[in-house]
Amino acid sequence: MPVQVTVWNENVHEQEEQAVAERYPDGIHGAIADAVAGDERTVRTATLQEPDHGLTESVLADTDVLLWWSHCANDEVTDEVADRVVDRVHEGMGFVPIHSGKNSKPFTRLMGTSCNIKYRHGGETERLWVADPGHPIVDGLPESFEIPATEMYGEPYDVPEPDRTVFISWFEGGEVFRSGVCYRRGRGRIFAFRPGHEEYPIFYQDEIRTVLDNAVEWAAPTDGSEAVWGEVEPAEPLED
Amino acid sequence: MPVQVTVWNENVHEQEEQAVAERYPDGIHGAIADAVAGDERTVRTATLQEPDHGLTESVLADTDVLLWWSHCANDEVTDEVADRVVDRVHEGMGFVPIHSGKNSKPFTRLMGTSCNIKYRHGGETERLWVADPGHPIVDGLPESFEIPATEMYGEPYDVPEPDRTVFISWFEGGEVFRSGVCYRRGRGRIFAFRPGHEEYPIFYQDEIRTVLDNAVEWAAPTDGSEAVWGEVEPAEPLED
Amino acid sequence: MPVQVTVWNENVHEQEEQAVAERYPDGIHGAIADAVAGDERTVRTATLQEPDHGLTESVLADTDVLLWWSHCANDEVTDEVADRVVDRVHEGMGFVPIHSGKNSKPFTRLMGTSCNIKYRHGGETERLWVADPGHPIVDGLPESFEIPATEMYGEPYDVPEPDRTVFISWFEGGEVFRSGVCYRRGRGRIFAFRPGHEEYPIFYQDEIRTVLDNAVEWAAPTDGSEAVWGEVEPAEPLED
Amino acid sequence: MPVQVTVWNENVHEQEEQAVAERYPDGIHGAIADAVAGDERTVRTATLQEPDHGLTESVLADTDVLLWWSHCANDEVTDEVADRVVDRVHEGMGFVPIHSGKNSKPFTRLMGTSCNIKYRHGGETERLWVADPGHPIVDGLPESFEIPATEMYGEPYDVPEPDRTVFISWFEGGEVFRSGVCYRRGRGRIFAFRPGHEEYPIFYQDEIRTVLDNAVEWAAPTDGSEAVWGEVEPAEPLED
Repeated sequence: MPVQVTVWNENVHEQEEQAVAERYPDGIHGAIADAVAGDERTVRTATLQEPDHGLTESVLADTDVLLWWSHCANDEVTDEVADRVVDRVHEGMGFVPIHSGKNSKPFTRLMGTSCNIKYRHGGETERLWVADPGHPIVDGLPESFEIPATEMYGEPYDVPEPDRTVFISWFEGGEVFRSGVCYRRGRGRIFAFRPGHEEYPIFYQDEIRTVLDNAVEWAAPTDGSEAVWGEVEPAEPLED
Repeated sequence: MPVQVTVWNENVHEQEEQAVAERYPDGIHGAIADAVAGDERTVRTATLQEPDHGLTESVLADTDVLLWWSHCANDEVTDEVADRVVDRVHEGMGFVPIHSGKNSKPFTRLMGTSCNIKYRHGGETERLWVADPGHPIVDGLPESFEIPATEMYGEPYDVPEPDRTVFISWFEGGEVFRSGVCYRRGRGRIFAFRPGHEEYPIFYQDEIRTVLDNAVEWAAPTDGSEAVWGEVEPAEPLED
Repeated sequence: MPVQVTVWNENVHEQEEQAVAERYPDGIHGAIADAVAGDERTVRTATLQEPDHGLTESVLADTDVLLWWSHCANDEVTDEVADRVVDRVHEGMGFVPIHSGKNSKPFTRLMGTSCNIKYRHGGETERLWVADPGHPIVDGLPESFEIPATEMYGEPYDVPEPDRTVFISWFEGGEVFRSGVCYRRGRGRIFAFRPGHEEYPIFYQDEIRTVLDNAVEWAAPTDGSEAVWGEVEPAEPLED
Repeated sequence: MPVQVTVWNENVHEQEEQAVAERYPDGIHGAIADAVAGDERTVRTATLQEPDHGLTESVLADTDVLLWWSHCANDEVTDEVADRVVDRVHEGMGFVPIHSGKNSKPFTRLMGTSCNIKYRHGGETERLWVADPGHPIVDGLPESFEIPATEMYGEPYDVPEPDRTVFISWFEGGEVFRSGVCYRRGRGRIFAFRPGHEEYPIFYQDEIRTVLDNAVEWAAPTDGSEAVWGEVEPAEPLED
């Protein structure tokens, strides 16, 4: 069975800034979709502007892993769609918020924290170090790689202590950041990945594409066991 | 400085069921408040029926640890008050949801999961085992203790993997449950404690009172460090 | 590439107790090997009595996942072989200690704790509840299953807080136990599974075999990234 | 009751290198002891050269928190003393390995991993960022602080995923490191702190002294509950 991937993008910078439109002629979602395509994958895209933001019950029911890019329009996502995404994660859908997707309603609701950071524009160098070389999300990567120009994110990153810290970034301006962190919520696997600012051609970089590709593989749901909730009869006889 | 404790209770069963009213003449909140009182504590109570459910900005600002009992009226708590509680937890307020307080808006928002369980009424025996004998919440407890009659909660408990699993319960009817689990969200310490069904005099039981008393001590905020979020200047000179 | 599995057994009870020998005519290792066999697997066995306990450098180098049953002869495993196993786990070999394999030198060295428990012989009922229904180790299992007669293990279980708590057991005699717990040490995945006492035909039970089979799949190594340790040159120019 | 602190130092560089002897005329242990002194503390020191390395059963029995500095002589610590330290941690003694104390026998035995890192001499700048501003170990600290000249440690740091990641360091040469990490093993709290290279006057720096002082407070044992291990009678009647 192919892994069914949906790449969601707010798709606003591409409409409003010519440089972004030229950098990503198929949208950031198009570049991400291209990065995660493969023989064992079906990949579709969805954007904020579509009805239900393109994330209907039916689309989500057919999605194994949802990659999510958002930034300036995080507040425009409806509560209903955000809760629908959260519910599907609980059911097992993998969720990969990218860059300021960390501020999205689905991610902050799944974390239960502010997800605050510090940041700086300007195009400095970032070096991502693999902190967990045994993790499947780093399969095939070198021990570190650089993004030559990016927006900076700095600690403290107000998220729950991660299940696994996969990447830690070094920034030219003096900050550090946990750039790849893993969680589980319900049955769903979550990987929050920091890079991907719209002002730079980051989604064309090989290492970034490898990470996203590996993340899809890692986040895809597995069967697990039955779970019974609600009122139940005793398994053992009760004393009167 | 005394620890400032607020005990919140929906206070509905006490109004609607005579047996509960007789069991807890000062309300469940009164019994909990009595359990956590002490020389180094100021303890007040608040209930659903008060304006802002008794949890105004001012009350929360003066609260170090909030204990929370709720059950049938979880949905009646306003979103505004729920978010206010969540925000104060992020700032450092300790939070101790008790029994079906696990279904409260503040707790489920802090967890990011459904917090589902299985359950059964009927008054069976529960035995709480200490799984983490080095934890301060179990100071002075025996290795296990029994509640002679209680509602059952059973696994799977749909919460994030706990930071620490303090208690695991055995039930006469054949189920198990992680009855005391610890988390941190932002600066706030959270301890979710299972026992405390309104149909039984559980809050008069010594071990239960010891747990709640210890939990207040454990959950009280500490200073921590400064945290700077938002746009920042570089700490190191950037190349042009 | 098939997953290369080695099943290690101290193989002492089978030699010394006729009932065990009759129950497991191919040894406990034989029964476990049968449970984890499959088209995409190569499975071999090794025992305490062989040179190097059958765990030479060469055997371990060709082992993706090592299942380990031990009990009365834990102390007879040489330090050299124990360290060799630990080193291979660090390199990525999956490790599945079963039953009192929790007291083995490799497991206690990987945990850094006493791994103490309480226990009782006598053949009581155990019911394993799935605490983590989204975990791949429970693929295809019901929400709980019973072992009709077993030795009891009870909390507190002196291990580090698990990465994931997969099973929690209920015992007829009133105890509970975290019967399936996951860790990572270095690149290696570890799943410690409680059941499997030699006095009962537990390794012929379908659910147990499913767990072991799933555990092999889960614990098999993945590639990960390069890791460089030791003295290194700077990635950035240093000021004089 | 005062917290009873023991500061252990291998005390070799001070004997062999004049610059270190001049920098730390009372030994590194002397400087650390001075940093953690206080009205509610008794502080003593012990070194490798003493009988039993100064860590007799009696000394450890009277130690609430052990701070540990070691480097070139890690292998000279006897297995017996290392195990004695580990056992006391299990019983509740706090343990604070400093700098290359991460390579000490007690710490590596408690972690169960190699504790490998990359490193570089030369005296570059390190900036420690607080990743967990709600942690008591950072009470009173700014959000970051610099060590003007130090040895570098770089990721990957081969330790188990920490319970809490308190500090992450940025290095001038381009690396990052989790410089303050918390664990529990048995009843004992462990805080591994990276800074403290002997070639620089790091233990005279205010922020470093504050961290060590806070770490002692955090790592001091609490009572906890009783723990019963070994063979036990059933709490519930067993069927025949």
